[in-house]
Amino acid sequence: MTFRIEKDFLGEKQVPSHAYYGIQTMRAIENFPITGVTIHTELITALAEVKRAAALANMDTHMLPKKIGEALVQAAEEVSKGSLVEEFIVDSIQGGAGTSINMNMNEVLANRALEVLGEQKGSYFHCNPNNHVNMSQSTNDVIPTAIKIAAYRLSEQLIEALSSLQSAFARKEIEFDDVIKMGRTHLQDAVPIRMGQEFGAYARVLMRDINRIKQAMRGLLIVNMGATAVGTGLNAKPEYVERVMFHLKGAVGIPVEISEHLVDGTQNMDAYTELSASLKVCAVNLSKICNDIRMMASGPRAGLGELKLPPRQPGSSIMPGKVNPVMPEVVNQVAFQVIGNDHTICLACEAGQFELNVMGPVLAFNLLQSLKILRNAASVFERFAIEGLEADRERCKNYVEQSFGIVTALNPHLGYEVAAQLVKEAVRTGYTLKELILEKGLLTPEEIEEILNPIQMTTPGIAGDRLLRPAD
Amino acid sequence: MTFRIEKDFLGEKQVPSHAYYGIQTMRAIENFPITGVTIHTELITALAEVKRAAALANMDTHMLPKKIGEALVQAAEEVSKGSLVEEFIVDSIQGGAGTSINMNMNEVLANRALEVLGEQKGSYFHCNPNNHVNMSQSTNDVIPTAIKIAAYRLSEQLIEALSSLQSAFARKEIEFDDVIKMGRTHLQDAVPIRMGQEFGAYARVLMRDINRIKQAMRGLLIVNMGATAVGTGLNAKPEYVERVMFHLKGAVGIPVEISEHLVDGTQNMDAYTELSASLKVCAVNLSKICNDIRMMASGPRAGLGELKLPPRQPGSSIMPGKVNPVMPEVVNQVAFQVIGNDHTICLACEAGQFELNVMGPVLAFNLLQSLKILRNAASVFERFAIEGLEADRERCKNYVEQSFGIVTALNPHLGYEVAAQLVKEAVRTGYTLKELILEKGLLTPEEIEEILNPIQMTTPGIAGDRLLRPAD
Amino acid sequence: MTFRIEKDFLGEKQVPSHAYYGIQTMRAIENFPITGVTIHTELITALAEVKRAAALANMDTHMLPKKIGEALVQAAEEVSKGSLVEEFIVDSIQGGAGTSINMNMNEVLANRALEVLGEQKGSYFHCNPNNHVNMSQSTNDVIPTAIKIAAYRLSEQLIEALSSLQSAFARKEIEFDDVIKMGRTHLQDAVPIRMGQEFGAYARVLMRDINRIKQAMRGLLIVNMGATAVGTGLNAKPEYVERVMFHLKGAVGIPVEISEHLVDGTQNMDAYTELSASLKVCAVNLSKICNDIRMMASGPRAGLGELKLPPRQPGSSIMPGKVNPVMPEVVNQVAFQVIGNDHTICLACEAGQFELNVMGPVLAFNLLQSLKILRNAASVFERFAIEGLEADRERCKNYVEQSFGIVTALNPHLGYEVAAQLVKEAVRTGYTLKELILEKGLLTPEEIEEILNPIQMTTPGIAGDRLLRPAD
Amino acid sequence: MTFRIEKDFLGEKQVPSHAYYGIQTMRAIENFPITGVTIHTELITALAEVKRAAALANMDTHMLPKKIGEALVQAAEEVSKGSLVEEFIVDSIQGGAGTSINMNMNEVLANRALEVLGEQKGSYFHCNPNNHVNMSQSTNDVIPTAIKIAAYRLSEQLIEALSSLQSAFARKEIEFDDVIKMGRTHLQDAVPIRMGQEFGAYARVLMRDINRIKQAMRGLLIVNMGATAVGTGLNAKPEYVERVMFHLKGAVGIPVEISEHLVDGTQNMDAYTELSASLKVCAVNLSKICNDIRMMASGPRAGLGELKLPPRQPGSSIMPGKVNPVMPEVVNQVAFQVIGNDHTICLACEAGQFELNVMGPVLAFNLLQSLKILRNAASVFERFAIEGLEADRERCKNYVEQSFGIVTALNPHLGYEVAAQLVKEAVRTGYTLKELILEKGLLTPEEIEEILNPIQMTTPGIAGDRLLRPAD
Repeated sequence: MTFRIEKDFLGEKQVPSHAYYGIQTMRAIENFPITGVTIHTELITALAEVKRAAALANMDTHMLPKKIGEALVQAAEEVSKGSLVEEFIVDSIQGGAGTSINMNMNEVLANRALEVLGEQKGSYFHCNPNNHVNMSQSTNDVIPTAIKIAAYRLSEQLIEALSSLQSAFARKEIEFDDVIKMGRTHLQDAVPIRMGQEFGAYARVLMRDINRIKQAMRGLLIVNMGATAVGTGLNAKPEYVERVMFHLKGAVGIPVEISEHLVDGTQNMDAYTELSASLKVCAVNLSKICNDIRMMASGPRAGLGELKLPPRQPGSSIMPGKVNPVMPEVVNQVAFQVIGNDHTICLACEAGQFELNVMGPVLAFNLLQSLKILRNAASVFERFAIEGLEADRERCKNYVEQSFGIVTALNPHLGYEVAAQLVKEAVRTGYTLKELILEKGLLTPEEIEEILNPIQMTTPGIAGDRLLRPAD
Repeated sequence: MTFRIEKDFLGEKQVPSHAYYGIQTMRAIENFPITGVTIHTELITALAEVKRAAALANMDTHMLPKKIGEALVQAAEEVSKGSLVEEFIVDSIQGGAGTSINMNMNEVLANRALEVLGEQKGSYFHCNPNNHVNMSQSTNDVIPTAIKIAAYRLSEQLIEALSSLQSAFARKEIEFDDVIKMGRTHLQDAVPIRMGQEFGAYARVLMRDINRIKQAMRGLLIVNMGATAVGTGLNAKPEYVERVMFHLKGAVGIPVEISEHLVDGTQNMDAYTELSASLKVCAVNLSKICNDIRMMASGPRAGLGELKLPPRQPGSSIMPGKVNPVMPEVVNQVAFQVIGNDHTICLACEAGQFELNVMGPVLAFNLLQSLKILRNAASVFERFAIEGLEADRERCKNYVEQSFGIVTALNPHLGYEVAAQLVKEAVRTGYTLKELILEKGLLTPEEIEEILNPIQMTTPGIAGDRLLRPAD
Repeated sequence: MTFRIEKDFLGEKQVPSHAYYGIQTMRAIENFPITGVTIHTELITALAEVKRAAALANMDTHMLPKKIGEALVQAAEEVSKGSLVEEFIVDSIQGGAGTSINMNMNEVLANRALEVLGEQKGSYFHCNPNNHVNMSQSTNDVIPTAIKIAAYRLSEQLIEALSSLQSAFARKEIEFDDVIKMGRTHLQDAVPIRMGQEFGAYARVLMRDINRIKQAMRGLLIVNMGATAVGTGLNAKPEYVERVMFHLKGAVGIPVEISEHLVDGTQNMDAYTELSASLKVCAVNLSKICNDIRMMASGPRAGLGELKLPPRQPGSSIMPGKVNPVMPEVVNQVAFQVIGNDHTICLACEAGQFELNVMGPVLAFNLLQSLKILRNAASVFERFAIEGLEADRERCKNYVEQSFGIVTALNPHLGYEVAAQLVKEAVRTGYTLKELILEKGLLTPEEIEEILNPIQMTTPGIAGDRLLRPAD
Repeated sequence: MTFRIEKDFLGEKQVPSHAYYGIQTMRAIENFPITGVTIHTELITALAEVKRAAALANMDTHMLPKKIGEALVQAAEEVSKGSLVEEFIVDSIQGGAGTSINMNMNEVLANRALEVLGEQKGSYFHCNPNNHVNMSQSTNDVIPTAIKIAAYRLSEQLIEALSSLQSAFARKEIEFDDVIKMGRTHLQDAVPIRMGQEFGAYARVLMRDINRIKQAMRGLLIVNMGATAVGTGLNAKPEYVERVMFHLKGAVGIPVEISEHLVDGTQNMDAYTELSASLKVCAVNLSKICNDIRMMASGPRAGLGELKLPPRQPGSSIMPGKVNPVMPEVVNQVAFQVIGNDHTICLACEAGQFELNVMGPVLAFNLLQSLKILRNAASVFERFAIEGLEADRERCKNYVEQSFGIVTALNPHLGYEVAAQLVKEAVRTGYTLKELILEKGLLTPEEIEEILNPIQMTTPGIAGDRLLRPAD
């Protein structure tokens, strides 16, 4: 392998001749061999778009020579379309608030621009990573801006996946509307419910989750371009800020806005914690739903057996014919990951100091991962688990018929204590509630029929209301 | 001590004659000697108001005899005003989704109503905890409703305290507007900033926190009265639901609304996790602010010494004259508690199963505590730390003058590399930047004066802009 | 109310005449109205013992006049036995690393000693909270030492409760040894298991938890008396350290030892995080066990119904006869609280800076609470849930007989694919596995009997091993 | 691309002709496109070793034909040495407790063995993924066993890195032993300390962390080979268990032992939570140390400036000459990740149900990541930050001389109140303590010299002890 020599104010380093990255990327590689996971491609795309907008704005304000600027714009557009992706080699978890990924980008764009300009890689006199590519910028404004754009896009994808899942639940609400089953509280038989009502509840809580995430996405729209180092805008002309926002909006197709107070916009990462919190709340709800579904699908013989999940893969390497609820299981696991990631995000956010939160890399790593895996999980969960989900109507109905939960409907007629005694006696003797009521002459057969109607119990009201005498 | 005998379907128990609570409270006391902390008074107040509304609604629908109903209403009003508070003895962490606190209330109200009616305590034939007090209700609707009302009220108090703190930050933004100081990123000297800008950032992030909490409070307004056991409304007439909401709204003065889907409203606790998440985000921000303030107030001699906190108490039992930043310290601790509580709340929420989340007690315990301690901490922090906070202007200015951070303003004029070399040389030789620039003939004294003006550096733009030749 | 005037270097304050506490406690009350929860009594007891040991040691080294010392020893002994407990009024969460609780104690002991000496309260010339009571000490050594002693004692109580619970599981292991039931993986029917094996697993994981907690308790034994302000031992004679440890060991009955490196011993709170982590691991395991038990006890008709929990209280305010698994539910909730507390403890520990962790109060608040509630929960869980737990042997057996999980035993004889096809056919046709095997002539009736024996399946080995031809 | 057709009991699928994986891997790829991160290579290596040991054991017990067995052993050895690594394509987060990674391995080994045997890929009659490769095994025993082996090896590497870092701290303890500096509590000037004492504290807490991790590693040594599906050992001969452990120990070079109770060993994942908890405690401590170092290295001009970190890379894309503490920053971030991962691990562990914890994949993903990144971070932190760390002795000394903290040494001589007044007066007037003491005639110059000696203050004892009159 051949090398070129690059230098910075700390000294020199060999860089592979073919590389578009340069000395600072080399330093970062040496310093941060941590996760082995490189930067999320959405973040690279967004950062290239930011760089393109900055180059255009710097040309608009006559700070950047047109020739260099145009080469940079071309380079940035190529990278934003996926070119040179293998040149982004710095680790996702890195010291320095994202300086290394920013410099990795600055170096790649500078060298690609040099190529465009017919110059040698590394001849930074003609196009310099700091002076030209990073002109009017700081890691502290371009990196948060790019993270927000990447997070926004992934959020949009997540919203799409969750909305689709939400619709699937809503379809099941209708499909299962007439499936009468035992409602359970404390895992104990309660009173009858329709399975459609349960899926209706799932659809509704997920709708609220979608709204919460949408609400949190608003914070991502406020960026701090032009803040430069600490938010005061040193070295960034006001006209630059105006132009860079113009170009950025045009390119990314997202209604980003400039923060009204750039010191605030640079110092505070609450947009990330807010978004992550909304993902966590969603993860908690999805995990609960998956727990319910796995329990309802438990069996086939020694479980509840109320639901049948579409078989997706043989469930066991040893037990023939076993099929496991692998789709809700993977959603549970993704939920746990998202909740743990939220924890990391909070720790990292709390560790911000003064004008900057230097924990940006670990923030971005976790936030983008959460968005991605939640989207992926929601999508396969819908397609492979909810779409083909079936209810075992017979089994559901049997439970209702065997259970004593329907006794609750007797409260207004016989009182809580008498009803409780009937249950105790039924358990002890094996008689049904109906038999005992008749034997004791508490109600007539017709009254029993009217009161103990499971389907009616699933809608508001007192069964056999007309049999009651008004209190006053 | 004398006792009366009470019984339920599990058997008999002795209850102290004087007690307004009854057998089920006795059982709960035996079963749950956990934290030693009884139920939050705001929750007791809210639950009494719910019971009052239910009694009125049950009278409206002619389910509850007027005589009993009126006695119950009187009892509930007394309790909601703080009477008989010592009768609520069940533990904050209890099994059973809140059945024990609900029954503790049902028993206290029944016995107080019996007293009003001239009957003996425990003579439940005349006024029964289940049949009369709990009529048309279930733990699963009244407890979440009462928790939400209590949480809403505490949230309002929290918002008030945070808004007041926010105003205090905003006042400091103005007061400190002309305090020039070194901005810091990575705890390293960056470029100048005004202290007012920092407090402006604190004011703004706190304003977003207030808005986030307000947004989350909306979820508390949706209650599930009439849901009864599983959300299907069994044993609750539609007219009852209408009337109970009417009476409840009137009494609590909060615009509560009935959930559109009571199964959803009973099963899902996302209103709590959403609110707690917003508190957590706020706690993270407050903790960061307190960390900043403690660092800026560090010293007096061997620290940064940029801020002076009002002395609140001798800081040390051994070091004479030492005064510690106890107010931000207590806010940090409260923030950690709120973040930990949020974790508990998520775990408890995830553990919901089917039609009910039985972990309600631990949810309420943590949510109400978080609201209360955050309010208290914000309030004393404002009064005892922010109000009397002073900046050491001289010290702040000295740092700016001694620092090399201002070199950044030279970038557009000399380029990043030359500027970096100047810093290195200044550090090595002890010369000032100015001296080196002059010696090397890089700029004239006038140009230096124009470019290296710290105050101008705290507003957007390129210092000495007019000295630059347009790029094209 | 009458008052006396006290002063410190920040000024004067009125103190109620009757109060044993003094001006610094008054300041703390004003500064920290946070949780409303006062200091854990175990911590007050331990701190009084520490103060007694210090007074004795200061007399031994002739630093403290005998007359004052003896009065202080008497005061400390009284407080350590529970006297004057109402004088400890500072909040559990307070700024300042515990200075306020230390000064609360110093003031109470000083005033009680003054009383013993026949002097007026507040006449600190005769016995001074700082100079005499706190002699050779700092908040930074006495508070961590007292916390560790309190935590150690509560840990011992916890170990006792967990050991008793562990024995209860072990007894159930024997009692349920012959209860054959379906093993479940992924909530799907797997292969037969004996319920005793499950409880044996519970007993074993709990035994490991006990050992982990015991291991972590060792860290509590290392205290930093004599460290004074920052661990350097300034103002504490080496002889004092020797004597104070001698007296402390004698009094508390715990083999406390002095840290070998007092700067380390003062700066680092890892003994707390280590202990809390072990509690968290235990909480995770207990929660899993409770989840299992609640699922096995689900029903009575529409659930698994394999276990019967002793009924502890009516489970519902609306559903007559319903009994809920309130004991495991409360353990789940306590587990969530302990896990959340661990989070707070980690945050607080991470926030330590330089020579001291000032977040001591919130650390102690959470650690002592976790120890206490876990002990309480373990104790009632054993007595009210495990002791009287019963298996429904018939139901367990029925599940085994209905299930296809036993097909796994056919693998070595027929191969995984053939076995899988048999299951599919059985599900489709309603035939039993046995019928299909016979019909297809795959095995003889005798072979089937030998291979498909559920009880044998619960011990290692291949059913019908002798029927197999060796591979080579 | 050409394909072969494979089938299982759920149907058929096309598999690329070249692939060594088969139909079940194809299904997993379709079902779980979640993180995009494949299985950790250490886990693949360990699983191949487990498979090799199982094949040998199955030959020993004459269950597996020698010809097939030998081909399998060869295949497993190749894979354990890194061959065919690109064939392991299933996602790290997957449903099903690891069945997919187990089947991915079973299929790759079967097809590679077929190749060795001269057969076509997919001709599983000759060597079957389930019947031959997975013989006597279940996902539920081989996967936990392989995770434990992989985690143990990574733990050993971590211990090595931490021990090396610990030694570096210990070297700094010696190197900085004579660096006198201000101790700080509450970020306020306390009393003098030597920087060596601080690094001694870091070395000691890290030593305890190492011991805690070592202690936790013991749990990894207990594996559950032969447990098969639920721990009862169905289809695994006792002789197999003995032989597989023999072969496994020989191959992996780790003293693994068989669990005494395989149901416990299969059901409980506490070995993971215990290890993760120990990593978390370590992460908390490392984060605190890095916070200290970053604060001490703050500056160069507007910070504490007590430490100089080796410059590792230009710190800013905009501020010339700025060098940031990127190495401790990356350690902070890794610590946050490890703490967040621990949270995920606890959630996943708590979600275990009955005989199995199906959340194994997310457990392994986080545990192995934590081990790896903590090792990597410790290693670069030592090499790039601690090794070349320098103290600014002059600056440290100046702080001591300027500070009032030394007044504490006057307590035994003048009393706390007098000393406190001296500080107040010194602050107010600008006089030094010495001057004020002399002026007031409180001590002689010689006494002052003896008492206010900063270096002596860093060792236990009362400065000027001989000047004090014994109390009695």
